[in-house]
Amino acid sequence: MKEDENTMLNVGVIGYGYWGPNLVRNFHENGLSRVLAVCDINKDRLNKAAQRYPSIRFATDYHELLRNSSIDAVLISTPVSTHFPIAMEALKAGKHVWIEKPITASSDEALRLIEEAERYKRVLMVDHTFVYTGAVRKIRELVASGELGDLFYYDSVRVNLGLFQHDVNVVWDLAVHDLSILAHLYDATPVAVSATGMCHVPGEAENIAYLTLFFNSTMIAHIHVNWLAPAKIRQTLIGGSRKMIVYNDLEPSEKIKVYDKGITATDSPENVYQILISYRTGDMYIPKLDGTEALKVGASHFIHCIESGEKPLTDGRAGLEVVRVLEAAMLSMSKRGEAVEL
Amino acid sequence: MKEDENTMLNVGVIGYGYWGPNLVRNFHENGLSRVLAVCDINKDRLNKAAQRYPSIRFATDYHELLRNSSIDAVLISTPVSTHFPIAMEALKAGKHVWIEKPITASSDEALRLIEEAERYKRVLMVDHTFVYTGAVRKIRELVASGELGDLFYYDSVRVNLGLFQHDVNVVWDLAVHDLSILAHLYDATPVAVSATGMCHVPGEAENIAYLTLFFNSTMIAHIHVNWLAPAKIRQTLIGGSRKMIVYNDLEPSEKIKVYDKGITATDSPENVYQILISYRTGDMYIPKLDGTEALKVGASHFIHCIESGEKPLTDGRAGLEVVRVLEAAMLSMSKRGEAVEL
Amino acid sequence: MKEDENTMLNVGVIGYGYWGPNLVRNFHENGLSRVLAVCDINKDRLNKAAQRYPSIRFATDYHELLRNSSIDAVLISTPVSTHFPIAMEALKAGKHVWIEKPITASSDEALRLIEEAERYKRVLMVDHTFVYTGAVRKIRELVASGELGDLFYYDSVRVNLGLFQHDVNVVWDLAVHDLSILAHLYDATPVAVSATGMCHVPGEAENIAYLTLFFNSTMIAHIHVNWLAPAKIRQTLIGGSRKMIVYNDLEPSEKIKVYDKGITATDSPENVYQILISYRTGDMYIPKLDGTEALKVGASHFIHCIESGEKPLTDGRAGLEVVRVLEAAMLSMSKRGEAVEL
Amino acid sequence: MKEDENTMLNVGVIGYGYWGPNLVRNFHENGLSRVLAVCDINKDRLNKAAQRYPSIRFATDYHELLRNSSIDAVLISTPVSTHFPIAMEALKAGKHVWIEKPITASSDEALRLIEEAERYKRVLMVDHTFVYTGAVRKIRELVASGELGDLFYYDSVRVNLGLFQHDVNVVWDLAVHDLSILAHLYDATPVAVSATGMCHVPGEAENIAYLTLFFNSTMIAHIHVNWLAPAKIRQTLIGGSRKMIVYNDLEPSEKIKVYDKGITATDSPENVYQILISYRTGDMYIPKLDGTEALKVGASHFIHCIESGEKPLTDGRAGLEVVRVLEAAMLSMSKRGEAVEL
Repeated sequence: MKEDENTMLNVGVIGYGYWGPNLVRNFHENGLSRVLAVCDINKDRLNKAAQRYPSIRFATDYHELLRNSSIDAVLISTPVSTHFPIAMEALKAGKHVWIEKPITASSDEALRLIEEAERYKRVLMVDHTFVYTGAVRKIRELVASGELGDLFYYDSVRVNLGLFQHDVNVVWDLAVHDLSILAHLYDATPVAVSATGMCHVPGEAENIAYLTLFFNSTMIAHIHVNWLAPAKIRQTLIGGSRKMIVYNDLEPSEKIKVYDKGITATDSPENVYQILISYRTGDMYIPKLDGTEALKVGASHFIHCIESGEKPLTDGRAGLEVVRVLEAAMLSMSKRGEAVEL
Repeated sequence: MKEDENTMLNVGVIGYGYWGPNLVRNFHENGLSRVLAVCDINKDRLNKAAQRYPSIRFATDYHELLRNSSIDAVLISTPVSTHFPIAMEALKAGKHVWIEKPITASSDEALRLIEEAERYKRVLMVDHTFVYTGAVRKIRELVASGELGDLFYYDSVRVNLGLFQHDVNVVWDLAVHDLSILAHLYDATPVAVSATGMCHVPGEAENIAYLTLFFNSTMIAHIHVNWLAPAKIRQTLIGGSRKMIVYNDLEPSEKIKVYDKGITATDSPENVYQILISYRTGDMYIPKLDGTEALKVGASHFIHCIESGEKPLTDGRAGLEVVRVLEAAMLSMSKRGEAVEL
Repeated sequence: MKEDENTMLNVGVIGYGYWGPNLVRNFHENGLSRVLAVCDINKDRLNKAAQRYPSIRFATDYHELLRNSSIDAVLISTPVSTHFPIAMEALKAGKHVWIEKPITASSDEALRLIEEAERYKRVLMVDHTFVYTGAVRKIRELVASGELGDLFYYDSVRVNLGLFQHDVNVVWDLAVHDLSILAHLYDATPVAVSATGMCHVPGEAENIAYLTLFFNSTMIAHIHVNWLAPAKIRQTLIGGSRKMIVYNDLEPSEKIKVYDKGITATDSPENVYQILISYRTGDMYIPKLDGTEALKVGASHFIHCIESGEKPLTDGRAGLEVVRVLEAAMLSMSKRGEAVEL
Repeated sequence: MKEDENTMLNVGVIGYGYWGPNLVRNFHENGLSRVLAVCDINKDRLNKAAQRYPSIRFATDYHELLRNSSIDAVLISTPVSTHFPIAMEALKAGKHVWIEKPITASSDEALRLIEEAERYKRVLMVDHTFVYTGAVRKIRELVASGELGDLFYYDSVRVNLGLFQHDVNVVWDLAVHDLSILAHLYDATPVAVSATGMCHVPGEAENIAYLTLFFNSTMIAHIHVNWLAPAKIRQTLIGGSRKMIVYNDLEPSEKIKVYDKGITATDSPENVYQILISYRTGDMYIPKLDGTEALKVGASHFIHCIESGEKPLTDGRAGLEVVRVLEAAMLSMSKRGEAVEL
């Protein structure tokens, strides 16, 4: 912990809605950075925050933050449609940029941000939070070590009775989590997407959707999102040729179960029309996970990348990849599932 | 219970593999029918059965059953590809016919059986077992009474580490259950299907698949099947405009949870870019279900239809509808999700 | 909400360890009261709190709070052994007093506080938090309305791998919750206690204990506490002659299940040596609970009692009753379960 | 498997109520023994069984079985009060004896059976079924190997809405399971018992009870049984100095969870009144269990002991030990928890 305030990173936070308070808390209390200013268009919200953080400046115009030369980095937590213009201005103003997921509303915008960040040698990081959770980091470790064998599928159900949003549909809101997790776990990129969905609130975007991702292998990914479900479910099955994982993010501590299961296909001696899958079943175990708040891990990583010049795990390109799949999914959904090449 | 043996229905069972023993037990011990003969090509299996049921005749050639004029009805529990020829012969021999799901390997075959049954005025029933469970009957009741409101979606996950089969893929094995449940719950028929899937055992059929069904409304159905999952899951979400159901078939007694939840879309006063779904949440309840074995209910229904001339709930047409969707799903799967009209 | 600061209740908080921060947050941000000063012997802790609450005074000597005539009430959240002397001084100084559970280390002490509070006409309230949860309030409602019928038993398992404490054993730490819930739910007071327990850390107090409470009826209560359990369990069964409840406090939303179950004892016609309990089983339901933080409800209640002169639900006598049972349990435990009369 | 019928053990089954059919099925179909005769006083029941097993003789007087010199062993599955006289006659008639749990209605009776069996050199085995389950055998293995460290406690909750019985209370019906498991897992015998309980059906025996067992160590056992619970629970916590187990017998496959948890007591540097338990928490694992039906394992063991002359794991002495604790518990319960020495 750097206790010397002079070496701390100074950040500004733009957008103090649902997620902004978490950003302020994490970047203000980690000992590595401090929040100099927070901006939001809603004054009531700012007043409430001012009571909580008397040392922070509050503003309703984000340009004030961009003009503040003491601010090294800005964290953008505004509606998706505003990510691009704000981030662009911030990069031009010489700030490092952290953006909430999804990085932008289009892949063109993402691409332009990436170029701008490279030109100005600024760090551009997208807050794919799940990548920094103990659970996903552990799964990544299990995949990378070969313990799972070849990946066969990634199959996620992410549903709840959730906040419908105006400017994006359920895919942009929820599937983005799985796409970022998947990109982190599996090195190959998808080659095509088939998506279906439906809207049940007249005039609004899709509130239920299903995505299938194809790869240049027998790997298949499926993502299942729903804002209108009676219960909250966060369950992902990850199948490998050697072991398989059930990842239930709602379990307080036993989030990941690693099953020592696999199959060997043999013909049934007694039943010519049935193949017998003699499956190995060994012990199952539940690895202990690092319980550090994901946002804290992500914040440290962002600060580290700014200081070291390293590329963030979830940099602009990671953000772009996710947006490309989202765009393809939108197109496929409009064609009732016809696969769209990536 | 008819204790007079003379008025009992006499049945013959063709196929004594995985499901056959259940058929024999249910049709032999219900007091309404008795099993006169059982046929299977596997002699070991027959010998085992003979010890258990000394009063039943056993044969390796099903024609023996068809020639037996004391037999009123045959129950066909053989591989799918053989359903059609055996059923056809049975109908021609004047027998009532019960067939395991799916009814046939093609819609053409199903259509021909339906016509044949009509011509000979025989009962043709397909064993869509789930339709006869206490759980599905209760859900049907809740849908029919309007308690759920308009149906928004039917969303099922049916996965396990299961018996891979030679002659059919996972869709024909598992999705058929959901298709038959859905047809029973929802009166409209689907207009198109989009399906994706993958095979992970070289040379075998798809072991993982995802189906989306479209209707002439905002209703959407999704079916998620997998033979290679680390854990067994049988979970269906059914969303209506008034209430929603979580149906977990693995729960020993609390299979159905009825949530008094619904949404009303309103604009958020404090956040112009977010619509607020003010959702009603009331009590949740778990209805008591009739615990009678589904096969027993189905068997009684079959016998009743033979005696009364009524049409079975799961008659040949119900079987045909399911097979049509299966065929469309196969075609869509071969085109990576492109919707196929029904 | 009183926005006029002049009518707000001014409170001081003594003890800023595990629970103190929750007291400060709730009494400072509810709009009905504000925290003027906080006292703790640990300076580091105070410095941290000072950053969070710049408007609050911090002190290491609680006498400073007692001398402050602007402070109307003090909240005592210190080790149990210090509850009595601090509360006594506070009452004498004319303060209303809120004390963490258990109210005191002995029933004598509790009795003296009650008398002192009555003499000075001050409110004395013990923080039996669970009484103010939505779950317990709902159960109280179900008991009071007669929906459960006559109470047969209250049976609680409250175990985890927990913070061992120096000055009290597991009974004083955990069983106190159940005793306060029970006193709130059931109007009769217990007549005797049998308790057993064991200590597994040399030199420390009991870390596992079992209490049985007897009443002047067939009601029986059992409390099962353990600081050394592999998993956290908070499960209470409440049996009535008409209905029964399973209360699982760890469920995020479905904490209470109300079973429409009951028994009728009849002789078995077919088995002379077995009585048949023909039990009614109807639907089960899960009532929606008020999700307000219990401490917020308790704080409002405390403030309301100070203003109105009403007696708190969990007043000194409620605290005394619990301590009497705790003392009897200690004595019984030392005699390996011999019942101790109350 | 002995296919030669001449070397098979011939058994007779006395009592064909709740458990008898399981005995017949297991001893008739295991290839090592066959059931020659079954006796019950209820003719309807026998008729039903006769249909199922045409090769078995049925009788209403058990003396018929005792006189049958072809019968080597009898399995007694009658009400507890009749165990002793029937078993005594059977031993005198030279039969090996298998008795359902609990072995007898008193320790005197058990002692006399043990002596008689020794005199006639017959095998006397009590059907403590749980000892033969894959779960308990695995736990025994974990205890014996030292993986759990020293045992701290055995803590079981075994409740349901169950068959009230005329001739025994809930302790004799349900606690007997835990007592037999405990005796198998832990080598020391208890030195005292404290028990409490209550009866809620006028004129019947206790339907709810709690037992604490003391040992000559810090080991403590607690057993919690209830016939009048809203839900079925079969959960046992087993705490050791190195690892701890949660054993949930209702889980279909994940019955045993082994937690790598333990504590180290240290003084808290920042809080003089609180000891800090720095607890190690590692991975948790779920061992694969042998899924063989317990009764099948027990039957094989009985047959093996008869042939080899070995002493059964659950011999008369094991049965006696359990009955001694049951008797002490009854006495303690009548004294509201006063400990009774063993």
